Amino acid sequence: MKELSRIGVLTSGGDAPGMNACIRAAVRRALAEGLEVVGIRRGYAGMIDGDFVEMDRLSVSNILQQGGTILKSARSKAFRTKEGRERAAEHLKAHGVDALVVIGGDGTLEGATRLGEEHNIAVVGCPGTIDNDLFGTDETIGFDSALNTALESIDKIRDTADAHDRLFLIEVMGRDTGFIALSCGIGGGAELVLIPEMLTDMGAIKERILSLMSSQSRSSIVVVAEGDELGGAQKIAEALREESAFDDIDTRVTVLGHVQRGGSPTARDRVLASRLGNAAVEALLEGHSGVMVGIVNNDVKLTPIRNVWGRKKEVDYDLLQLTALLS
Amino acid sequence: MKELSRIGVLTSGGDAPGMNACIRAAVRRALAEGLEVVGIRRGYAGMIDGDFVEMDRLSVSNILQQGGTILKSARSKAFRTKEGRERAAEHLKAHGVDALVVIGGDGTLEGATRLGEEHNIAVVGCPGTIDNDLFGTDETIGFDSALNTALESIDKIRDTADAHDRLFLIEVMGRDTGFIALSCGIGGGAELVLIPEMLTDMGAIKERILSLMSSQSRSSIVVVAEGDELGGAQKIAEALREESAFDDIDTRVTVLGHVQRGGSPTARDRVLASRLGNAAVEALLEGHSGVMVGIVNNDVKLTPIRNVWGRKKEVDYDLLQLTALLS
Amino acid sequence: MKELSRIGVLTSGGDAPGMNACIRAAVRRALAEGLEVVGIRRGYAGMIDGDFVEMDRLSVSNILQQGGTILKSARSKAFRTKEGRERAAEHLKAHGVDALVVIGGDGTLEGATRLGEEHNIAVVGCPGTIDNDLFGTDETIGFDSALNTALESIDKIRDTADAHDRLFLIEVMGRDTGFIALSCGIGGGAELVLIPEMLTDMGAIKERILSLMSSQSRSSIVVVAEGDELGGAQKIAEALREESAFDDIDTRVTVLGHVQRGGSPTARDRVLASRLGNAAVEALLEGHSGVMVGIVNNDVKLTPIRNVWGRKKEVDYDLLQLTALLS
Amino acid sequence: MKELSRIGVLTSGGDAPGMNACIRAAVRRALAEGLEVVGIRRGYAGMIDGDFVEMDRLSVSNILQQGGTILKSARSKAFRTKEGRERAAEHLKAHGVDALVVIGGDGTLEGATRLGEEHNIAVVGCPGTIDNDLFGTDETIGFDSALNTALESIDKIRDTADAHDRLFLIEVMGRDTGFIALSCGIGGGAELVLIPEMLTDMGAIKERILSLMSSQSRSSIVVVAEGDELGGAQKIAEALREESAFDDIDTRVTVLGHVQRGGSPTARDRVLASRLGNAAVEALLEGHSGVMVGIVNNDVKLTPIRNVWGRKKEVDYDLLQLTALLS
Repeated sequence: MKELSRIGVLTSGGDAPGMNACIRAAVRRALAEGLEVVGIRRGYAGMIDGDFVEMDRLSVSNILQQGGTILKSARSKAFRTKEGRERAAEHLKAHGVDALVVIGGDGTLEGATRLGEEHNIAVVGCPGTIDNDLFGTDETIGFDSALNTALESIDKIRDTADAHDRLFLIEVMGRDTGFIALSCGIGGGAELVLIPEMLTDMGAIKERILSLMSSQSRSSIVVVAEGDELGGAQKIAEALREESAFDDIDTRVTVLGHVQRGGSPTARDRVLASRLGNAAVEALLEGHSGVMVGIVNNDVKLTPIRNVWGRKKEVDYDLLQLTALLS
Repeated sequence: MKELSRIGVLTSGGDAPGMNACIRAAVRRALAEGLEVVGIRRGYAGMIDGDFVEMDRLSVSNILQQGGTILKSARSKAFRTKEGRERAAEHLKAHGVDALVVIGGDGTLEGATRLGEEHNIAVVGCPGTIDNDLFGTDETIGFDSALNTALESIDKIRDTADAHDRLFLIEVMGRDTGFIALSCGIGGGAELVLIPEMLTDMGAIKERILSLMSSQSRSSIVVVAEGDELGGAQKIAEALREESAFDDIDTRVTVLGHVQRGGSPTARDRVLASRLGNAAVEALLEGHSGVMVGIVNNDVKLTPIRNVWGRKKEVDYDLLQLTALLS
Repeated sequence: MKELSRIGVLTSGGDAPGMNACIRAAVRRALAEGLEVVGIRRGYAGMIDGDFVEMDRLSVSNILQQGGTILKSARSKAFRTKEGRERAAEHLKAHGVDALVVIGGDGTLEGATRLGEEHNIAVVGCPGTIDNDLFGTDETIGFDSALNTALESIDKIRDTADAHDRLFLIEVMGRDTGFIALSCGIGGGAELVLIPEMLTDMGAIKERILSLMSSQSRSSIVVVAEGDELGGAQKIAEALREESAFDDIDTRVTVLGHVQRGGSPTARDRVLASRLGNAAVEALLEGHSGVMVGIVNNDVKLTPIRNVWGRKKEVDYDLLQLTALLS
Repeated sequence: MKELSRIGVLTSGGDAPGMNACIRAAVRRALAEGLEVVGIRRGYAGMIDGDFVEMDRLSVSNILQQGGTILKSARSKAFRTKEGRERAAEHLKAHGVDALVVIGGDGTLEGATRLGEEHNIAVVGCPGTIDNDLFGTDETIGFDSALNTALESIDKIRDTADAHDRLFLIEVMGRDTGFIALSCGIGGGAELVLIPEMLTDMGAIKERILSLMSSQSRSSIVVVAEGDELGGAQKIAEALREESAFDDIDTRVTVLGHVQRGGSPTARDRVLASRLGNAAVEALLEGHSGVMVGIVNNDVKLTPIRNVWGRKKEVDYDLLQLTALLS
């Protein structure tokens, strides 16, 4: 095996709080090991364009607590083609980059694996996505921050829901998965949580809401993951309003949206991201490739990316029942 | 003039952070003066229903920092009729309520005045609305809190806008007025601010955004008040997307919504609300009626509600220019 | 075994964010199972005084997001005596309380076990302490919230440290343990972390700080757990100031203090507390006693309290090295 | 008068949230007017050392929301001497700097004035200090942010005070002035506020606290400005503990400290700082010198710095009474 001397770092896909902390850890660990580090800007799009920047200790100073990603992110159609990855690999070789730390979600890891296999480049992935649905790690970078951001908003909406005895449908992120919705449901004291993993039974939902609102003439919060079967909070609200029994219920919708992606990462995300960025470089140094670093039962664990791919982590269905029980 | 012995307190219209601090101040000042205090729940709707509750020191303890309103709020169509106000007045008399402190916006103050004039009840209003558009006070209760909530969201969205070189249209509250939007524009470093007080020139807007996005391939934030001429951020986004020049610009919309109404009030709103709740009782004790208490140039000032009515406070147009200059 | 019909709930020891969420979960789960619930106020002190309050669904509504504990807490010397516990047990029996859910730290759990054994009362403990040092659970209720509060303060201090090129010693909670300090160190980008579990080598510390401050004339943050060997941040600062090499280094101390105990719990603490409160009642229903419920590797686990006692959970020493590596 | 072509910008004295927003506004307004801008790092210390940096639009991008000051700050003894100021002036002339925008407190403004008068350099000051005590402006940059930071901490401490029925003495910043303490007192629902502007009558204080704590066996919060007559919260606590009547009162002290200086500025501080930075450049362009820009009754106002000097703005004593009345 060729000795490692120069590695590239990139972020790709949807940005997540903690990505900067992960970049910082990877860069500083690599420098501490005597490696050189190149930042690749705008993910695979920048790799194809050769948008590279040399990184030293100061490049990553004072970014630990910042949301977003200083390397920027992008989605690249070209990289999904063999030709695109060829151009990317040429740039890497021209810059003497032997190995990559890639930070992102499912698609990002898949792209890295293909590139690595086709062009003999070592790649280690870090799970960076607010969705928390990656197999191979108990938690992904950004999940805890996004969750707390969503929950703070729900707390605020609860104030106004209570003041007016309203029904609020609050849509949180999660196109394919209900991790954020579920934890927001319990943490926000929601009366109901709708997630993509479950069928949406409008009949049962209507009945439950009507019984909640009538029995005590009080407010209710329903948390809806954006990927809910019916297509999000707005659609649910429309379905409710069709029913005449809902004429007297003041129903409002709030779509929290991109706010959930930004902001300073929580303590947990900073520690997680620091551990994973560090572990990724360590894995490269130990000769691994095609793996994702994760934390499982509080230990660093490597999982072949091919196993991560297309394999969703399951939500904890007990939490659904707990929400109903406690609300 | 009849001696004051028992007053009622209510909140009405859209809730605003700081309303609880205002209730607390009014109740405690009144108790300190030897008056009895009745809380009227759910605004004028509760007044018509006789939904009254006796209040003492402890009724308002530990609410200073809470969003929403412990007395709840509601909109009442019945109170807009003479008959409705008659029923309300009967309940007040049955409960021995001589005078009212009403906390809310334009419509709330108008309703109080009619009630007071028709049924010889002393009423003093406190300006409670996040919109800040009431004439007779430099600031309304809730404005500073709503503004900071909106701004925190914009800061977060800026992270993700920067990471992806995106254009974000962020809609903030303000159906008739641009106070929140303007301050968010300056405070959030927005590139453009659209407010109801100004015509929306889509041609100029497109040109400016294109020049911003092309010159530096960077992100942009446009803050849109919900009452903007075109009808809010979603409408603006649709108008932009019609233009082929916008095909390559990743444009997103976030509607902040009801989050802005809730949450713990800021220091400024707590102090303001405490001063005004106190001043309202003082005004009643001095024999005033049909007036709103406000803070003008840092002093308490009474303004006849009839002058407040339908008369909007003007935004500071210099701030619009400043936003453009600094972005 | 006697059928369970009426349980008591209490919080004791230092308060922690999430205690209210735990009370709520225990109460609502118990009510859902047809049990009656008695709240015992001010921990064991209140138990001895018979300060009991009947609880229903509404007693715990809208408390999920509140810091502190609605049942209040206290330390009781009397309860450490056999006589004290006897008086307590008499009150429990007089009120028909068969079983207890106790929420608190080490001492709280110990007291409960003694009471249970001496008077044949079923007790299940929930780990509630910001210190996170209880054996038998990966995390304690309140830890994540306290950590984030401390970190937000450190972020703010970093601003002013940077502006003035200062050395800041920041003391965080942790009389016997460095969990908060360690995570704050990594999450806050501290240059050094001092924890009770490690000897404090002032020579090495001075050397490292001097090298940091001189090499780049920059700011440094040292996080000190209150139970550090030398006795906290103030003591460390005094030791540094004795050295003439520190004459030119502007050294400041901030003791974060009780701020870390309060505030709205984080999402993680709310979910944890809800799961544990629920699990505690479940454990009682299944006939367990003398056990603590915890979450280990994401599953609920019961641990005999006698095993928890006096047995500290170990900090992750790798995190110490990681802090040094990344700073 | 010589045409203006190149200005310097600096921050000096204690840092305050919003200083960066003020720098940004001054730089961008100056650039918009065709001026060149030089940043002077580390205040007057950097001016004497010639620590200058050229500034363009991008130098100040993405700093609006950041605490601290990108130009750093320092206190300089040398600048208090004529020789020091001479060296500083030489550097300014060598760099072609005609005029200065200085951001800071009392001492900063005084230094600028002396420099300006001795060396014929135009200077305009911006009031930047969390203390809010500068004459000539209703509010100083940083006050609103510091106040909210302090208040958030007080809210958290209230949780734990309530849980344990404790007396908390909370020390906030304000060496010579009680602005922060007063607003925190009202906003935090404090039972008592001690400020430097008032004599501290320990007898009366003890009596009031004892009456509060005994009557209801409840918690109390006393807010103490650091410059209180007795010398801060720790001293007050010691005086209380001497009294045997306080033996049974669990009394705690928290000194909030430097946390109050950092953090992202509030909306209000961002708008204020942006207006003032802009106004300072405008004042220079109009030929003014030796003046401070401020906002009085919502309008920009220029005040000769010689009038600002040593002349304290008065706190609003009515707020003291209001705190007592409402608590």
